[in-house]
Amino acid sequence: MITTILFGTTLVHAARPVDGAARSLRALAGRYRLGVVADAAVMTGTQVRDALAATGLTDLVEVIARSSDVGAAKPDPHGIRHALAQLGAEPGEALFVGDTTADDEAAQAAGVRFAYTQPDRDPGIAVRAALTLDVGAYAAAAALLAPIDPAAAAGARAHLERLTKPSGSLGRLEILGIQLAAISGVDPPPLPSPAAVAIFAADHGVVAEGVTPWPREVTAAMVANFVAGGAAINVLARQVGATVTVIDVGIATDLDAMGVIGAPALLRRAVRAGTANLAAGPAMSLAEARIARDIGAEIATTLVSAGARALVTGDMGIGNTTAAAAVIAALTGQAADTVTGRGTGIDDEGLRRKTDVVGAALRRLPSDADPLTVLSHVGGLEIAALAGFIVGAASHRVPVIVDGVVSGAALLAAHADRPDVLPYVIAGHRSTEPGATAVLDRLGLDPVLDLGMRLGEGTGGCLALNILDAAARILHDMATFEAARITPVNDATS
Amino acid sequence: MITTILFGTTLVHAARPVDGAARSLRALAGRYRLGVVADAAVMTGTQVRDALAATGLTDLVEVIARSSDVGAAKPDPHGIRHALAQLGAEPGEALFVGDTTADDEAAQAAGVRFAYTQPDRDPGIAVRAALTLDVGAYAAAAALLAPIDPAAAAGARAHLERLTKPSGSLGRLEILGIQLAAISGVDPPPLPSPAAVAIFAADHGVVAEGVTPWPREVTAAMVANFVAGGAAINVLARQVGATVTVIDVGIATDLDAMGVIGAPALLRRAVRAGTANLAAGPAMSLAEARIARDIGAEIATTLVSAGARALVTGDMGIGNTTAAAAVIAALTGQAADTVTGRGTGIDDEGLRRKTDVVGAALRRLPSDADPLTVLSHVGGLEIAALAGFIVGAASHRVPVIVDGVVSGAALLAAHADRPDVLPYVIAGHRSTEPGATAVLDRLGLDPVLDLGMRLGEGTGGCLALNILDAAARILHDMATFEAARITPVNDATS
Repeated sequence: MITTILFGTTLVHAARPVDGAARSLRALAGRYRLGVVADAAVMTGTQVRDALAATGLTDLVEVIARSSDVGAAKPDPHGIRHALAQLGAEPGEALFVGDTTADDEAAQAAGVRFAYTQPDRDPGIAVRAALTLDVGAYAAAAALLAPIDPAAAAGARAHLERLTKPSGSLGRLEILGIQLAAISGVDPPPLPSPAAVAIFAADHGVVAEGVTPWPREVTAAMVANFVAGGAAINVLARQVGATVTVIDVGIATDLDAMGVIGAPALLRRAVRAGTANLAAGPAMSLAEARIARDIGAEIATTLVSAGARALVTGDMGIGNTTAAAAVIAALTGQAADTVTGRGTGIDDEGLRRKTDVVGAALRRLPSDADPLTVLSHVGGLEIAALAGFIVGAASHRVPVIVDGVVSGAALLAAHADRPDVLPYVIAGHRSTEPGATAVLDRLGLDPVLDLGMRLGEGTGGCLALNILDAAARILHDMATFEAARITPVNDATS
Repeated sequence: MITTILFGTTLVHAARPVDGAARSLRALAGRYRLGVVADAAVMTGTQVRDALAATGLTDLVEVIARSSDVGAAKPDPHGIRHALAQLGAEPGEALFVGDTTADDEAAQAAGVRFAYTQPDRDPGIAVRAALTLDVGAYAAAAALLAPIDPAAAAGARAHLERLTKPSGSLGRLEILGIQLAAISGVDPPPLPSPAAVAIFAADHGVVAEGVTPWPREVTAAMVANFVAGGAAINVLARQVGATVTVIDVGIATDLDAMGVIGAPALLRRAVRAGTANLAAGPAMSLAEARIARDIGAEIATTLVSAGARALVTGDMGIGNTTAAAAVIAALTGQAADTVTGRGTGIDDEGLRRKTDVVGAALRRLPSDADPLTVLSHVGGLEIAALAGFIVGAASHRVPVIVDGVVSGAALLAAHADRPDVLPYVIAGHRSTEPGATAVLDRLGLDPVLDLGMRLGEGTGGCLALNILDAAARILHDMATFEAARITPVNDATS
C-alpha cells in the first residue's frame, strides 16, 4: 500500500495557478508523506522551497532531494532513493509523480510506482488514478478530499456587498453563491452546468416482507424508462441541461431480456442481483458494500472527467426507503417509527410492517457498527454506491446536490466516514419522507426547496439546480454599485 | 357607457375551438347583456342556438335576432335595432362585434359602437379594446376576468395519475401543473415561457419621514441599472429567458437628465412625480390611483399581446415597503407593528419611525375605505399599477407570479376588488418582510420558494418561474405507465 508520494518539480506547479493543485496536495498531506525529487538543472532546492512557500505548501513536504545532494540527475534513481531513505520508506510503498520520461525511468530503476502528470494539470488527477489501483476509488477520493477554500468564500462575500442590492437581500442565493465559491476555490464560481445526474439502481431482498405495494420488477422497468427518457428525472434534467446516467449496481431483473442492453446512458456495474432480505440477515457482505462504494466514487470521477460541473444524486430501487430508514435510524440514533415513512405509498398496516422490519434489523446491528457495517447490514447497493459518489464528488471539488431520503441515508454514511464532505453538499429539497428530515436535522442542512416531493430519482436535487445556477449567475453578471454609479448605504448601521 | 354587447354570427365561433372565446363570453355575461344578430343566409337562428348549446353558452345570450325576423339582412340596421328593442337598450349604450364590412355598416346605421374581430379569434380581444376606450383598461380587464377551467384541471389531475411515478409523489409540481391547466384551459398547459417581468417604478413622498436609509434618487438609478441589464432581476430573467420591462409610473428624478431616454425596455407612463407624503395626507388622488391601475392593466395586455405566456410582478421605489405595509395593514386589519418590516435595511430606531408613520396613516384612513381609496390614501403609484397588472394578467388567463411584499400589497388590493384573480396567482416566494407573510396568510397562498429574499424587483417571482416551467414540462414530457408498460399500483389502497 502506498504511504509515500514523491513528486518531480511538477509539484512546484502547485505554487502556480494550476486549478486545484495546491488543494490536492493539502488533502494528500493529511494521509501521505510527501517529498520532492528535484533536478538542479531544472530548479534548485531553494527555488523549490521559495515556490512552495509562496502558497504555504512548504510544511506539507517533508523532504526535498536535489540532484546536487546525490550527485546524479534523473533518470538516475539516486534522488528517489535518497528521498525514501530520509523518510524511512520502502520503494514498494512509494509513488513517484512526474512529467518526463526521465522521471518514469528513475522510478522504474528505484522500484517505485510511477504516475504521469502534466505541468499544467493538477497532479491530484494522476495521484487519484494511482491510488485507485492501490486502495480503490473510494479511498482514493477520501485521500483527495480537501477542505473548502475560505479565501474564495471571503472573496464572494465581499463581492456580494458590492453588487447593486441591499446587503443580504438575495438571502439564500447569496449563501449558495458563497458556498459555490468556497467549493470551486474561485469567485465568481463556475456555473453548475452542465450538471450530471447519476441514478444508482438496485433491488432489495426486503421486498419479501411486503414493505411496498410495487413489485420488484418495477426497478428494472423504471430503468428502462430512464434510458428511454420518459421518467420525471429525464424531464427535469432536460429542463436544466443535465445528463442522466443510470448505474445498475444490483438489479435483480434480467435487463438484457428487457432489451435495454448497451444503452449508452446505462452502466452495468451490478455487484449482486439485489440485496438479501435485511429482515432476515445482513443485506450484503462488507466486501460487497465496499465494492458498491468504490463504484459510486468511480462514477463521480467519470462524470467530472466528462465535464460535469455539478453532480446530483439519484436512486431507483423498489424497497429502498426501508433500507434508507434503517441506515438513517442506525446513524442518527432515531427510533424506527420516527424515520420510517410511507415511501411510494403504503397503507397504515404496511407502514407498521415496514417499521417493524426496520426495528428488527436495527436490533441485530452491532451497537458500535462503523458506516460500512451499517451499509452492509441494513443498507442497499445503491445507498452504498451513493455514499461513494458523494465522497467522490466532494473530492473533485464540485457541488453535489443531494436529493431525498435514499440519497440522504447515503449522505449520512458518507459523512460518518468523511465529515469533510459536508461543505460540498447542497440539500436539494425536503422530501416528505420523515427520514429525510432526520438527515437534514442531524447534519444541520437547510434544503433549497420544500415542495412536498417524495419521488426520488434525483428529481428534487435536479430541480434545485435551477436555484444553484441562479446563485452563480448573480456573482457572474450583476453590476456593482460602482459600475452603476450608485452610492451604497451601509444597511447595518443607518 | 356600454351595457349591451351584440355579436354577429362570430359569437357562434365560441362554440368552436377558438382559444378562450367561450370563457370571454362567460365573463362578459356577468356584467353585460349579450345578444346575437344573425343573418339567415349565414346561419339560421336554430343553428346559432344549437351551436351555443353545444358549449353551454345558450343561457348567456338573452336575444337572437334573425334577419328573417326583421325582413332585412345586414348592412341593414334593423336586426341590431330589433335586438336592442328586445333588450330595452339604447344604441348609445351598445357595442356590436362583427367580422364583416356589412356588420360595421349596420352598426353605424344603427348608431351603435363597432368592434372588429376575426372568425378564428377570441372576440374578447376586440371587446377588451372597445371597453378600454369606454371605461378604461382596468374595468375592461375586470369584465373579462373569467373563472378558471375546472375541466382542464380535472384533465391534468387524471393525466398526472397516468404518469410513471407514485401518485402525488411530485408534490407541489403536480399542484402547479393542475393550476396551469386550469388557468389556460388546456392540458398539458402551455409552458410559462416566454415570461415577462414588469417592473413598475415610482417614488414616495414618505421618504421625507426617514423611513429608509436610501436616498430617493436611487429609484431612478436602479431604473437605469435595469435598462442597462445589470440588476439582480436582469440576471434572473436572463436565466429563464424572460423579458424585463420597466414602467415609470411616477419617478420623481428626471430620467431624461440621466440619459435613459427612449430605452426600449423603459415605458414612460408617469402619473405624477412621486406620491405625496402619506404621513401628512393622501399619497395621491383617487383619479391618479385609477390611472395607475389602468396603466398596469394596459401593460399586461401589451405584454400578453407581445407573446408572454406568464407575467411576473416587479417593483422599484425607494420607500415603497412603507406604503406596502400601510396597504397590507388596511386590507388585512393587522396592526402596523405586525406588518411593518426593515425593507432594504433600517435600524431599530428607523423601524419604530416607519411603524409610527404606518400607524398614523392608517388612523386617517376611513374605516370603510374601498381598495382604490386605500391605494390612493396610503399606497403608491407602482402598487396601484401592480394591482391593475395582476387583474389584467388574470383576465388574459395567463399565470401571474407575484413577488414580494410590494407586489403582495397590490395583490391584496386586486383581490379585494376582484376575488376571481386568486386562482390565476402563484405566490413566487416568501419574502422576509413580515407584510409578505401577512398577505400569504390572508389569501391562503403557499409560496413556491422560501429563500430568505427581500429584494423586490420581481426577483423571487422570476426565480419561481423555473419551478413553474418544470411543472408544465412534467405534463408535456413524462411517459405514461401504459407507454412504459408498467402496471401502476393504486397507492391509496394497497
